[in-house]
Amino acid sequence: MDAPPVTETPPVPLTSPAVPPERLLLGPGPSPVHADVLAAQARGMVGHLDPWFLEVTDQLAAMLRQVLRTDNRLTYAVSGTGSAGMETAVVNIVQPGDTMIVGVNGVFGGRIADTARRAGAEVVTLEQPWGRTIPPDQVAEAVAAHPEARAVALVHAETSTGAHQPLEEIGTMLVDTPTLLLVDTVTSLAGVPVEVDAWHLDVVYSGTQKCLSVPPGLAPITFSRKAEAVIDSRAGAVRSWYLDVTAIQRYWGAERAYHHTPPISSLLGLHEGLRRVLAEGLETRWARHAEVGHLFQEHIEDRDAVLLAEEGHRLPQLTTLAWPEGVDEAALRRRLLTEHGIEVGGGLGPFAGRAWRVGLMGEGASHGNVDRLLDAVDALLEG
Amino acid sequence: MDAPPVTETPPVPLTSPAVPPERLLLGPGPSPVHADVLAAQARGMVGHLDPWFLEVTDQLAAMLRQVLRTDNRLTYAVSGTGSAGMETAVVNIVQPGDTMIVGVNGVFGGRIADTARRAGAEVVTLEQPWGRTIPPDQVAEAVAAHPEARAVALVHAETSTGAHQPLEEIGTMLVDTPTLLLVDTVTSLAGVPVEVDAWHLDVVYSGTQKCLSVPPGLAPITFSRKAEAVIDSRAGAVRSWYLDVTAIQRYWGAERAYHHTPPISSLLGLHEGLRRVLAEGLETRWARHAEVGHLFQEHIEDRDAVLLAEEGHRLPQLTTLAWPEGVDEAALRRRLLTEHGIEVGGGLGPFAGRAWRVGLMGEGASHGNVDRLLDAVDALLEG
Repeated sequence: MDAPPVTETPPVPLTSPAVPPERLLLGPGPSPVHADVLAAQARGMVGHLDPWFLEVTDQLAAMLRQVLRTDNRLTYAVSGTGSAGMETAVVNIVQPGDTMIVGVNGVFGGRIADTARRAGAEVVTLEQPWGRTIPPDQVAEAVAAHPEARAVALVHAETSTGAHQPLEEIGTMLVDTPTLLLVDTVTSLAGVPVEVDAWHLDVVYSGTQKCLSVPPGLAPITFSRKAEAVIDSRAGAVRSWYLDVTAIQRYWGAERAYHHTPPISSLLGLHEGLRRVLAEGLETRWARHAEVGHLFQEHIEDRDAVLLAEEGHRLPQLTTLAWPEGVDEAALRRRLLTEHGIEVGGGLGPFAGRAWRVGLMGEGASHGNVDRLLDAVDALLEG
Repeated sequence: MDAPPVTETPPVPLTSPAVPPERLLLGPGPSPVHADVLAAQARGMVGHLDPWFLEVTDQLAAMLRQVLRTDNRLTYAVSGTGSAGMETAVVNIVQPGDTMIVGVNGVFGGRIADTARRAGAEVVTLEQPWGRTIPPDQVAEAVAAHPEARAVALVHAETSTGAHQPLEEIGTMLVDTPTLLLVDTVTSLAGVPVEVDAWHLDVVYSGTQKCLSVPPGLAPITFSRKAEAVIDSRAGAVRSWYLDVTAIQRYWGAERAYHHTPPISSLLGLHEGLRRVLAEGLETRWARHAEVGHLFQEHIEDRDAVLLAEEGHRLPQLTTLAWPEGVDEAALRRRLLTEHGIEVGGGLGPFAGRAWRVGLMGEGASHGNVDRLLDAVDALLEG
């Protein structure tokens, strides 16, 4: 046995309970969470192999398939945030030396490229200025130059720029080739249409804290049969033990073998969140996001803000905007939080120091929130 | 813009809310969670860059240092379960070609070895039968044979066997060598003494759902200065983007740079759970686990169960026991759950089909729970 403890715990004063301030979350995520979803996270604890909980995981997989519009067998929630979903997507399909074509028009495409390189891929980047999308022709050229490419990776909703990437034409282009289409839908899922099967998307991951309006901590993911075949034909082990889809599927699938203990409270929250999404209906939810987002974009231009995403490819749920010269965006944003209790995000990369990112996502996408935000901005600009 | 949705959402009946049944969780985890900790997960949502939340992360790091008994600067909670903590520990210190010495006397040592191989390490295993510990002499011999080894990895509390690995002598052995000591404390932390600084442990990870009695989903981790120096001297990038400590420390440290959106509700739960641990006091909590666990072990032997961990190295909080020939452990365990609402675990690996794993961890470690479990077992054995 180990020796008895060397020291007594020093008499440090106890930290006070952490009771969050009231915030209206209109930044790039997390989005507002409904009280029922929060309450579901506090309903109680059960074991991850409890027959009751295994049924919940089946229900979760079924609801995720509905939200992702897919029949893919291999559909589950990764035990980590959206970034863990991204890494799961990449490391399971890439083997060292594989070529991966990655669209980079913002932060999140850059992350996919970084992750793919760490996984041993030869990365071919398709670059576009921030705020623009990757044209299908640019993808076609790259695939023609690299017909051996394991995958093309694109970000459907670039959270750093607000650009809305078209996917359907590219999915159709790749469907009869050996190349997979890998798509980041972290900020798009349940906010704008995502049609995994109809658009021939092969590996699709998302996050919970955007248009699903569930707290961060899980990443919905799905793999097509074409992607499964790539995984099945791997010569070497996936570089990650934690994110190895084949092993994890033994838990989510029929076998019910223990892999790791998943975040049970978070999964109960996701269950309630998905119920809310499906009760509203996906088409209704997409229409709500479109209406509210366009309303905000129209009115914020009246305040002399410039929208940074390319016209015709603007996400309604995530708007990037630049204030005129002379407006201190950081000071304005700080006052919005402290004086009005409203969070919006600052710009990243080339947009840092001049841009805001405004999210009207999930529970946050309402006319009332647009009014409240515009009123607060007006008060601050006048002040 | 993408084409409008191809299909209308089919009218699938809505899934009912997931309301967990009442369970007394006396398996190998998750352990019972106090209502205050569950409630903390439902307190509300805030942004991960909100000044209020950044203060919460500072408080979390400070409380984790207290519980881990360390002054290590680099101490935080990984955004994933205990297994993500394990992978973080391994992939940040291992570079391809490094030698890693891993004690394998149960499932979890085997996982470290597997993860290290995926990270490119040459793994030297130190094997012992299930239920036994790795003797310090065996470690000394391996280190003498591999003085270049990057790390020795040991499991402090083998959740598959109930064995309690001595660490202090091994820590002292390695302190003036270039080799790090990496320790899995998933099931030990807050249940038996863990003295990171006094025992010279370099990389230590844990989980939340064992003796901390917090829902699964986060992995406390800490790195010594010696471990930090190894990370700083890496020639190549860490193979994982999501678990790259250097990047994550830019969020938890002074810089406050965005890396990924952490599981905010789970972190609020951990905050409340750590408050409860520190309010009880670590020494008191260790003593409670020792007393309750030994009481159970003594009484279960009276029921003709055989304890499987080596005497003198038995964890009080996690007991492996084998029933006599003729007892159908799986049927007994199923009835314990369905008729008495008590969860215990089955055996893994060579213990599968004959063993139970009983956890008296965190909120579960009470005299009342021992009584309730023994009464239920007696009723089932008589029935």
